[in-house]
This record gives sequence, structure tokens and C-alpha cells, in this order.
Amino acid sequence: MVMDDLRIGLIGGGFIGRVHSIAFRMLQGAFAERAQGVSLKVLAEKDAQTAERAAARLGIHEWMGNWRELAERMDLELVIVALPNYLHKDVVLELIGRGKNVLCEKPLAMNAKDARQLFDAAQKARIKHGVNFNYRKTPAVLLVKSWIENGDLGSPLFFRSSFSQDWALDKGRPLDWHFQQRYAGSGALGDIGTHVIDMARFLVGEITSVVGSLSTHTKERAVTGFDDAARVPRDLEHGGTRLGTVDVDDTSSVLLRFRNGAQGSMLASRVAQGRKNHLEFELYGTEGSVLFDWERPNEVYLSSTRGTTAQSGFSRILVGGLGHPYGASLCPVAGMGTGFEEPFAIQLLEMIEAIRNDGDMSPSFYDGWRANQVVDAVLASAAAGKWCQVEQ
Amino acid sequence: MVMDDLRIGLIGGGFIGRVHSIAFRMLQGAFAERAQGVSLKVLAEKDAQTAERAAARLGIHEWMGNWRELAERMDLELVIVALPNYLHKDVVLELIGRGKNVLCEKPLAMNAKDARQLFDAAQKARIKHGVNFNYRKTPAVLLVKSWIENGDLGSPLFFRSSFSQDWALDKGRPLDWHFQQRYAGSGALGDIGTHVIDMARFLVGEITSVVGSLSTHTKERAVTGFDDAARVPRDLEHGGTRLGTVDVDDTSSVLLRFRNGAQGSMLASRVAQGRKNHLEFELYGTEGSVLFDWERPNEVYLSSTRGTTAQSGFSRILVGGLGHPYGASLCPVAGMGTGFEEPFAIQLLEMIEAIRNDGDMSPSFYDGWRANQVVDAVLASAAAGKWCQVEQ
Amino acid sequence: MVMDDLRIGLIGGGFIGRVHSIAFRMLQGAFAERAQGVSLKVLAEKDAQTAERAAARLGIHEWMGNWRELAERMDLELVIVALPNYLHKDVVLELIGRGKNVLCEKPLAMNAKDARQLFDAAQKARIKHGVNFNYRKTPAVLLVKSWIENGDLGSPLFFRSSFSQDWALDKGRPLDWHFQQRYAGSGALGDIGTHVIDMARFLVGEITSVVGSLSTHTKERAVTGFDDAARVPRDLEHGGTRLGTVDVDDTSSVLLRFRNGAQGSMLASRVAQGRKNHLEFELYGTEGSVLFDWERPNEVYLSSTRGTTAQSGFSRILVGGLGHPYGASLCPVAGMGTGFEEPFAIQLLEMIEAIRNDGDMSPSFYDGWRANQVVDAVLASAAAGKWCQVEQ
Amino acid sequence: MVMDDLRIGLIGGGFIGRVHSIAFRMLQGAFAERAQGVSLKVLAEKDAQTAERAAARLGIHEWMGNWRELAERMDLELVIVALPNYLHKDVVLELIGRGKNVLCEKPLAMNAKDARQLFDAAQKARIKHGVNFNYRKTPAVLLVKSWIENGDLGSPLFFRSSFSQDWALDKGRPLDWHFQQRYAGSGALGDIGTHVIDMARFLVGEITSVVGSLSTHTKERAVTGFDDAARVPRDLEHGGTRLGTVDVDDTSSVLLRFRNGAQGSMLASRVAQGRKNHLEFELYGTEGSVLFDWERPNEVYLSSTRGTTAQSGFSRILVGGLGHPYGASLCPVAGMGTGFEEPFAIQLLEMIEAIRNDGDMSPSFYDGWRANQVVDAVLASAAAGKWCQVEQ
Repeated sequence: MVMDDLRIGLIGGGFIGRVHSIAFRMLQGAFAERAQGVSLKVLAEKDAQTAERAAARLGIHEWMGNWRELAERMDLELVIVALPNYLHKDVVLELIGRGKNVLCEKPLAMNAKDARQLFDAAQKARIKHGVNFNYRKTPAVLLVKSWIENGDLGSPLFFRSSFSQDWALDKGRPLDWHFQQRYAGSGALGDIGTHVIDMARFLVGEITSVVGSLSTHTKERAVTGFDDAARVPRDLEHGGTRLGTVDVDDTSSVLLRFRNGAQGSMLASRVAQGRKNHLEFELYGTEGSVLFDWERPNEVYLSSTRGTTAQSGFSRILVGGLGHPYGASLCPVAGMGTGFEEPFAIQLLEMIEAIRNDGDMSPSFYDGWRANQVVDAVLASAAAGKWCQVEQ
Repeated sequence: MVMDDLRIGLIGGGFIGRVHSIAFRMLQGAFAERAQGVSLKVLAEKDAQTAERAAARLGIHEWMGNWRELAERMDLELVIVALPNYLHKDVVLELIGRGKNVLCEKPLAMNAKDARQLFDAAQKARIKHGVNFNYRKTPAVLLVKSWIENGDLGSPLFFRSSFSQDWALDKGRPLDWHFQQRYAGSGALGDIGTHVIDMARFLVGEITSVVGSLSTHTKERAVTGFDDAARVPRDLEHGGTRLGTVDVDDTSSVLLRFRNGAQGSMLASRVAQGRKNHLEFELYGTEGSVLFDWERPNEVYLSSTRGTTAQSGFSRILVGGLGHPYGASLCPVAGMGTGFEEPFAIQLLEMIEAIRNDGDMSPSFYDGWRANQVVDAVLASAAAGKWCQVEQ
Repeated sequence: MVMDDLRIGLIGGGFIGRVHSIAFRMLQGAFAERAQGVSLKVLAEKDAQTAERAAARLGIHEWMGNWRELAERMDLELVIVALPNYLHKDVVLELIGRGKNVLCEKPLAMNAKDARQLFDAAQKARIKHGVNFNYRKTPAVLLVKSWIENGDLGSPLFFRSSFSQDWALDKGRPLDWHFQQRYAGSGALGDIGTHVIDMARFLVGEITSVVGSLSTHTKERAVTGFDDAARVPRDLEHGGTRLGTVDVDDTSSVLLRFRNGAQGSMLASRVAQGRKNHLEFELYGTEGSVLFDWERPNEVYLSSTRGTTAQSGFSRILVGGLGHPYGASLCPVAGMGTGFEEPFAIQLLEMIEAIRNDGDMSPSFYDGWRANQVVDAVLASAAAGKWCQVEQ
Repeated sequence: MVMDDLRIGLIGGGFIGRVHSIAFRMLQGAFAERAQGVSLKVLAEKDAQTAERAAARLGIHEWMGNWRELAERMDLELVIVALPNYLHKDVVLELIGRGKNVLCEKPLAMNAKDARQLFDAAQKARIKHGVNFNYRKTPAVLLVKSWIENGDLGSPLFFRSSFSQDWALDKGRPLDWHFQQRYAGSGALGDIGTHVIDMARFLVGEITSVVGSLSTHTKERAVTGFDDAARVPRDLEHGGTRLGTVDVDDTSSVLLRFRNGAQGSMLASRVAQGRKNHLEFELYGTEGSVLFDWERPNEVYLSSTRGTTAQSGFSRILVGGLGHPYGASLCPVAGMGTGFEEPFAIQLLEMIEAIRNDGDMSPSFYDGWRANQVVDAVLASAAAGKWCQVEQ
């Protein structure tokens, strides 16, 4: 048996930190051989009390109430950063400075300039770096990617995608960091729109110009406290009385142009009544097309120009089984089911193997930077009322 | 028994003319009392041979090889114009000049200027005028409209819609009028995108500005002849050898802004592999949202903020039955089925009743003109690479 | 132009009679050439007042308050019998006696013995006879049939189908003829289950034995009057006070064995909350399988053993277009839409052509008799608690 | 930190044993607090080589080439039995004899008599016992169960369910234990039909009588070796030449009657082209109904008689979130996704908590025995061609 030789630290034990910890367990089960010797060693949170509570909830034995302390640990090879957007920069730079490999939550940074700084620092330090665009690691999406690489869809013509949720329709939600430009960078666009942007880049190619339209339904929300020392908002409560301004979008629509000539159209909204986590896309190429909806992650639809006319249509393909990406490990029988954690586990596995084999991680900070560039271009476009180039 | 007192003439016996004739029959069946005394009297086509053949195929007893001759008939109260776009203007102006009520195919005209001319002429002549935006007459869509009017959706936040087909992926199709700006005005945008534009106006409200992106996949096609005397293309054949330029879009993406502050996003494509006649939309409001897909015309999905959290979701509502628009006449049992002709029959019924009761027809040439304005603004926007106001 | 040479009479102007009249109009539109010279001449109802009212509603010019009078008309070539089950026998025998061709509503008779009598009489009189199992004339179902005949599904292994509705959950509905054995023969089994039985016979083959289970949820309902002279129930009203016994099933489940060795399973219910007219089936063969749901009549799903493993699944095939049954006439563009009337129009067209060309109509009284045999066997099976042979 | 105080042994490291090991990891992630101190200690397989290989693949540190050795371990509190059906009896009796708590794969035994023996022995020994009917632990199914308990569906009227797969259509698959009565008890009926039977019992109630029909499509398959000493089949290979008889069903259809008067209908097949792991059910009650399809595990459909007529239909409810069973732990955002392992993890959690709190596990060997009784009754019914009582 191999020794514990790849120790992971986790910064942030909230909602998304917890998903990473579950994904780590799944890794140990579904990829036991490939993940041998990997351990999730320690959790950092903003203070001791929060850290202790979160560590118990996540089943991590060691904890610390300060992320700097974790960064100083000599035994960690990989650190997962699961913090709000505005904290990424300082934390990641510190980790890079100490030679840690980093898997960072999306969006990588508050803007493209910061993202570039992180990417440059990571390259210079020759660490392995990844950004958690988890949806592109969905087995169904990996299957689509394999079709694209195989030429089954021909050249891309257009891509249309939406990511919609409805939680921000609740006017009682306070003005937490999601609703403020200085903590979130942007609203639905940066939070969930970046998943669509990454999906577009992954499946279609680089985006060269955009035009966007942003709107905000609820323009004021109750102010909550913010702990400047810890650089985190205080625990949020409903029912605050002082109102503050929401200065980010809750719905954004964007047209995209890709370097290869394809068109695109995307929508991100957190005020779409009835939608919970509805990420769906259509991709049409000269030889075939695909449809996918994350709410039905076990299936993907494929239509090909090669079929006979009278029987042509979309084939509903159940994902899983030996012929499909990660099928043997994660889903040996087609249609058996992909949960939310699977893509995180795949992401983590690929990160680990990039470290162990000195390979390239994808998506990397490069991809994080490119996504931030697109976000910046959309914001500029919305402000200027015209198409904007994505800087390169 | 009432006498034959409302006689209809049909100009154009091709694909869409035939649908009108079937819809007329359905009217006689499903709305026998309200359509009493209405007859489909005569068909005009470009020449005698075509007219005779089409009249037999459509089951119309009288025919003539010239639309002017039909326009001169004194016994007709209503004329349906089912011709290619570039022929609408002359024909409709002539009909108006002779005091005929007119139901014209969409788009009303080649551009907003012409459309305005038709609208003005119609108003001045005090005829009844309608444009066949048939999809807004779908019982499911009328049901959605009733919810909106009832306040079930609250204020609109955003509207997203696609209309996609795949027939233009066939590179063997010749350069018929659909592919030429001078005969069609625009491509997918004007042909099927106008249905989306009309749906947006019907359900959400007036569109004030747009930004669009157009592309053309197959840029050259075999030239076919064009009979200038008859102002119609010659019979089209595959296999021509000389190539001509396709100067209209086959895919167009557009962002919309509505007067009431709502956002919109639309897509029209005729190169979407696997799609045949796929018109679908999502409409999200502050209190509720709806989903509709024409390929499944018997159902519509509704989500409301009023439901309990644990059981909230989209309700699949089967259309039909006594409580629904035209349910008693067209579909007395929910889910029993809406075919392609039903909306045409409803359109025709409403046109007839506007004539008989001196009421207003909707959609009218006004709506046709507004749709043409939006198309013009999209074309201008695509040329200029920026948002354009919709002129008013 | 051909003379009016095939005149149709309609007995019964209620819900289903009205559908036949709409289908006749659709026939004149969609199949104008093939239906040339056909007219819907006259309607009979139980009394003059009802007949006059119904004739106006259906747009039929002549009417009579007595079906015998209609039977005596010398000018009719075809009579459509759209009456409640218990009236079929006398009416159809009279029509046959007068040499009329007959299209009768389903179920053909109250039991197999009566159905056989009608079939024998029809054969002896050499009239053309049809039973309105309309669902088998759905274009999607005809497409499935073509695949079967083409060998695409191989040999049938099993067939599963349900027809479910929810109207009988309403305890306020009175004890009309549907709920009484002496007027209906059976309940959900005979009313909608016969459609499933006919579909099974059409797609799979003859049924040789059955075992069934019947149940009745609401066992008593308010009694309504019955007009014995006219042999029809009085107009039904909610709110009667005297209770009578419901002696027919509202849910029936049946296992089937086919002559070719296939298995089957069917369900018919009128107490299935949320279901309106939900007829769906799955058919699995050695080489392929199909799925169909009447609520989505424009699509059918096909899976074939011939596909590659990694891309195998069900193809969603949009019905319509030139390569599909009746596509050119009824639905020239795939997915454009099948309404409730289309199958009735196809049925009527085939009946007319059987008469004109001295051909065979299918489904005929033979099929009506076979369906009644299966119903009788299910009733016997449910009473005896064991499998029963279907008599032949 | 709590000590390792609940050690689990796993017998069988094949396909389903591996799923248990992944589920154990997920448990450690998603239920870290409740599963504290639980460890998956040791794996037993049929011989040392197999055990070593499987232990590496599953990430279990200790292994042994003999299940008896594992049974003798004094440190194990819970043993999971993931072996073929014919091995359950001996292994489970031995484990019970040594006071181990047991979670056994389904079906519990080869027949009801054996199952009863296991249930009696477990009760006498006062161990905790569970059977892995994993599908009833699906969050969506637990949500349905909560509605039933809350009275949302009223009294059950009928239940219809299918479980279909297509792997046995491959005639090249050898005659492994699944195809032989002496090793499997029955075919599709016992293998996947027991999941349907358990679902029916869980959601509707006890089954009192059944009538069934069985068939076998491929009646002969290539013989493979069988290692009598180890009581397991040799590694199976395609391509054997000697043919042996398949003496179990590959398709079984059954009608059910429940003690509470409800009807049921079920189908289990492993020769359903295009189906991979398709478990779906409909349950109709006097006040509401539900639909579920395991291929879309994140959603369940609910219809209630309480809705208004014009807006009634099935609500698509995305599973997850705080108000739903295990939502906070497994799926905090609705629609985020249930994978195949989640129900196994819930099953294991409940087993552990039954042990720790001296509570009752459900489903227990009692449920395993009842399911075996229903299977036996179906086999007897199919042999006798009549309804059979389920013994009690």
C-alpha cells in the first residue's frame, strides 16, 4: 500500500467547500486505485469556531481558523479554494507564493486583469492550477466533447445556452456579497454565466466579441453587516431594515461571436421562476447537433445529417457504460445516474493526475482568465450599448 | 339557412395557400354556426395551368390564372394573400384599392416602409386587414395570453424564444426566392423570425431596441430561372450548374429590449440539424413563468411563485376542454390535439367576425408593420454592429 | 367537376358525431381530389328539436328526428353510426338490411355475439363496413406499422399500453349510460380499452388468451331519467338524489398472450387523476422497439439493435413530411402537427375509397368483432379469476 | 474525535459490491457527522487473488480469500453481503450465527421458504437486518412516500410499474448464473422485478394475490464452467460452444391485488431494446397521482384533485433542497442531481443508525421475505395459469 503522499487542504467549508469534500470521498470510492495515497487533510475557515463546526460537518479531522496558517503548512501539495469571488486573489497569490498547486472556484477573479495576474504568477511558479468549471466535467458533456473531436458534428454553426435559477426572486434575501459589485464582480453573469461561457469555449472555441444586456429586477435589499477584519460578510439574516443598492445584474443576455465563425447566444438569470439549476445548451454544427439539460444529466440528444430522412431525429442517448467517458468507473450501466458530485470528483482526479504526472490541467487559470475576459467584455458592452471585442 | 354572404378569394395555391384552404374546411366543421354563409369561392395562381391544377388539389371550384382578375371580382368580401414576400405590396394595394378586406401572409412586406404604406392604405380605405401570424392563435398560446391578462405572471422580466428548422442545410437546394434579398427581404429572420417577433409583441409588449447577429452557412447555390413577366421564380429544380450568391441570413440571433423594461433573446435558424419546425419560448415574469414548444402543441408549462416551496415546479397543463380558449369548439377534451390548421382556422374565424361585426382584427397590418420595423432594425444593427432603436 | 356521387348520412350529432363532421371537412380540404364528389348530406338525431340544433352546430343542412327515416333514404351510400353502444345493433342491422355501407363507432357491439351477428350480416349483404378505431389511423401509428411491416422491429416480444383518463373521479357525475352494464356492455374496458385492444391487434397480432382484473371506485351515482321510447337517456344533470349502482369497471388491467408468442399488458382507467386522454404504448421486438404517446402525437421513438452501442438510444422521430404516411397531404412538414380529427379523416377517406374501388376496409366489422371477443374474455376472466381463451 | 467504533465487512467485490464501497465513501462525505467512527474495514472474495485485486480496485485495505474467515472476525459489527442469489442463505445464516448485523443484497433468498428461515434466524438472534432494495431510498421516492403519508394522494387506486433493460438481447452472452433457475431462483422477475415488488409494497401496501405470465426469448446459451468448491461460476467468457438451457424468464408481466383493494400491474424485462435501467411507475389515488422514472431521478410529477380544472396537470417537481428528504445533506439545491450511489448511501446510513440506536431497519429481512413470497406466487401462477394467493 502506498503512503499518504498527496495531501489536500481546503479553504472554505461552506456550501461549495462541502461539495468538494463529498467529491473527494467519491474519488476514493470510484477511483480508488488512481486516488490511492490522496488525503483531504485540513480545512481552513475564517475563525476557529466556524472551522471547527465545518470540519465536523465535512468529516475533516484537522482545521484552522485562518487561511494563512493553512497556506504555511509544508505537507500540503494541493489546496482547493472555495471562497467568495473577492477573496480569490489574495489567497491564491499567497498559495502560489508558497508553491502550492491550486484548484480555485469560479470565477477565477473579480476581473480579467486580476485573473491574468493569477495566471502569470502560476505559470512563473510552475505550479499546477485548475478552475472548477465543474459542468464541463459532466460525463454527458465529455461525451459530447468526444463527438466533436471525432468530427460527428462537423463545423460549429451556432450555440445557444441558458443557465437559470429563481432564488433571487425572493425579495426578503438580504444584500449579501452576491448582490454587490465590489464583492462579486458581477451578478448572474459572473456567478452562473461563467459556466455557460466556459461551456461555450470548451465545446465551440474562443469567443472574440460579445454584445450584452443586463437588468436587475430587485434593486434594493436589506443591508447586512460585513466583517472587514475577516474580509467576509457577517452571518446573513433576513429582516434587516436599512436598504442598500443591488448593483449587479440578475439577468444577462449575450450574443457571442466565435473565432471560428460560429454564432452564440447565452442567458443567465437568477430570477427565472420555477428554474432551480437549469443549465441547458444546444449546439448545431454542419454535420450534427446536440442538446443537453443538466436537470436530466443522464441523457444527451444527438442528431446527425447522416441518418435517413424518414427516420431522422434526435437520438436520446443514455450516458454511462464502458464506451463512455469515465463510464467504467462512475457509471458502469448507462442511465444509472450522475449526481452533482461526479463532475467535481472527475475535476479533482484530473488535478491530482496533473500533479502526479506533471501534466497539464484543464480547465486551468488560463481558462479562468479567458472567462473573466468575456465577462469584462459583456460588462463593457452593456455599458456602451455596442459590440465589444474580447481582449487577448 | 343563411345565404352565401361572405365569399373568400385565395391568391396563391402553394404550400401555405393549401393550409388556408384546409383551415377554411375546418372552420366549416368546428365553427359551423359562426362560419355559416362563408364560402371559399375562387383561387388565383400565376397562370391558368397552375391555377387549374392547384384548384383541383385544394378543392376550389373556380380558378383564374391571374391575380388581377380575382381582385376585380365584385362578389368577394375577403381575399387571402398567400404569395411570396416580394409580391405582397402590389397585390395588397390593388385589393385595398378595390375595397377588399385582406388577410395577408407574413411578413407583411419587404421592409417597414412598404408595410407602413399598406397599413396606411388599409386604414384610409377602412377595410379589415389581418396578417397571418398563425402561431399566436395556437390554443396553448391563447391560454398563456389569458394568464398574462389575468396577472398570473406578474410583470414580464425576460422572454427567450427560438424558431429552428434544418431544411437549408441541404446544399443541393437551388437559389430560390427564399435565399435572395430582393425577393425575400431577409432570410430566416423575416421568414420564421417574424413569428418570434410577433409572439414577443403579443405576449410581452412593444420592442424598442435590438441588436442582432446574422450569418449564412451556404453562401452560393445553383441559380434557377425567374419569370419576370409573372413576377415569380420558375419551377425550381435541383441540379442547376451556375452558382449565385445567397445574400440573406440562415441564422440570426437577436437581443431585444421591450418598452416595459423586459429583456428578450431570440434565435431563428434554418440550418439547425434535427429541427423541423421547432418554435419554442420561455417567458419569465415577477409572479410566474411559462414554457411552450410548438412540437408539443397540446401542452404548456406554468410555474407560479404562489406555490409552496417543497412542491413548486412547472405544471404541465394539457390544453383543451371547456375552460380553455376555443376549447369547446376545437378541442373539447384536454390533450386531444391541436394540428397545424387549427390556428389558421381561428385566424380566419376572427377575420370573418371582424368583417361581419365591424370589429378590429388582430394581428392587423399594424402588427405586420411593427414586425417589419423590428426586422429592419435587426438588419441595421447587424450592419452597424450596435444596438438600434426600432423606429416608431 | 365530378357530380355529388357519394352522399353520407350521420346518425348521432353528439360529441363524437361532431368529430366525424369536422373530419369530413378536413377530408374536403386535405384530400380534395380523392374526396371529390363526397358530401355529408343529412343528420339524424333522436327527435326533431335535438336534430335541428345539432345540424346547425355541425353545419349539416338536412336533418331528421329519427334514425329510421335516415335509413330509408335512397340517396345515401354511407352511413356513420355515432351512437351509444347499446343502440349500435338495431341501427346497424337496419342499415345493412337496406344495403347501406356503414362506418360504426366502437365498440362495434355490446358483446361478441352481437358483433358477430353484425359482421355476418354485413358480409352476407356485401356492404363495406368499418369500425372507428381512430387511433390506429394516427400518422405516427401508421409510421410504426410501416416499420413493423418492413421488419425493423423483428418479431414482437412484448407490448404494453395504457389508456387513462380522470373524468370519472368526479363523484357528482350522474349514472349515465357509461356507468351501466346494460347500456355500455362494460366500463373503461369497452370504452377506451377497446382502443388498446385494437392497437395491440393492429401492431402485434391476434390475442389468444387474457387474464383481467376489474375494479370500480365510485359504486353509486345519482340516477337520471331514461327515455325508453326513444331508447336514449334523458338529458343528464348533476345533482339527482336517488342513487343507483355503477355495475361496470372504471379501471381494468389485463395480461395478454398473442398467437405469435408475444406477451402483452394493458390498462384502461377513467379514474387516473391528471390524465385526460392518455393513450400510450411500448412495443419491444427482437430487432427494435417503439414508444408512442397520443398526448404528443407528432413524435414517435424508435430504438434499433443495429445502432452502435455507444450511441444507441431512442430516436425521437417527428412525424410528417413526404416520406411518412399521409405526410404529403396532412402534414407536409415534419412536426407540424396532428390534431384529433386527422385520424378520423383518414378513416373516412379509406372507407370512401373502399366503397368506390370495391376494396376492403380495415378495420372492419371483423376487427370490431375480434375486439368484442377480447372484451368478453376479459370479463369472463375477471369473473372466474383465471386466464380465458379468446373464442374464435 | 470519536474512535473507529463501527467496522463494516463487505463480502463480494464485484459490480454491486463496488457500488456499496462508493456509497460508503459518499456517506463519509455527505453524512460525515452521522457516520463518524464508521469504517469499511475488510473485503472477502472467493479466493485470495480475486480479493486482492478487488480490494485495490475498491480502496479497501484488508482482504481475505474466503467469506468464512471474514465471518469469524470479532471486530466487525456489520457485514454487507453482495453475492449472487444462491449464496445468500449459507452466508447470511453463518453471519447471524456469529451475531453480525447484516445488510444483504436482493433478492434476500432463492425462495420464500429460505427467506423466512433467514428472517426467523435474524429475529431470534436479535441482530439488525436489512435488504438492499435501493430504489426505495431514492430521494424522489422518499418524497413520494412523504406525500402518501401526508394523505396527498388519498387512497391508492392502482399502481403500474415497469423495470426494463436490454442486455439479455445479446445472444452471445453465456449461460451465467443469471440464466439458471438453480442459481438465480428466477430471471428478470427476481432480479429486477423484486425492485418493483418492493416499490409496490413500500408505496401501496401488502400484495395479496397475483397472476403472472413469463416468457424467455433466448432459450439456449453457451455453457460456462462452474467452480463447485468455491460455489461460484468460473469467470465467464463469450464464445463457449456447448449450449445449455435458459430456464428462467427474461420478461414477466404480473397483475397484482393489494390488501387495501388497489390494483396493480408490473412488468420486468431484460430484453427491452433501448432500455438500460428503466424503472418507472405511476401511482393513482383518489386525491392525487404521481409519476416517476429513474432515468430522470431529479424530478417527480404530481397531480392533485385539488387544483383548478383549467390549470390542472402534473407538476414537475425538482427533487432536492431543504424541504425534501435528505435534501440538506445530499442535494441542497433542487435539481442538482441524484446519482446511483445516493440511495445506497442512505440505505447504509439508516442501517448504521438502526445498529447504533437499537432501532428498526426498513426494508428488513421481513420485506425481503415478503418480496420472495410474491415472486413464488408469480411463479406458481404462471405454472398454473391462474391467480395465486401470496402466502402469509
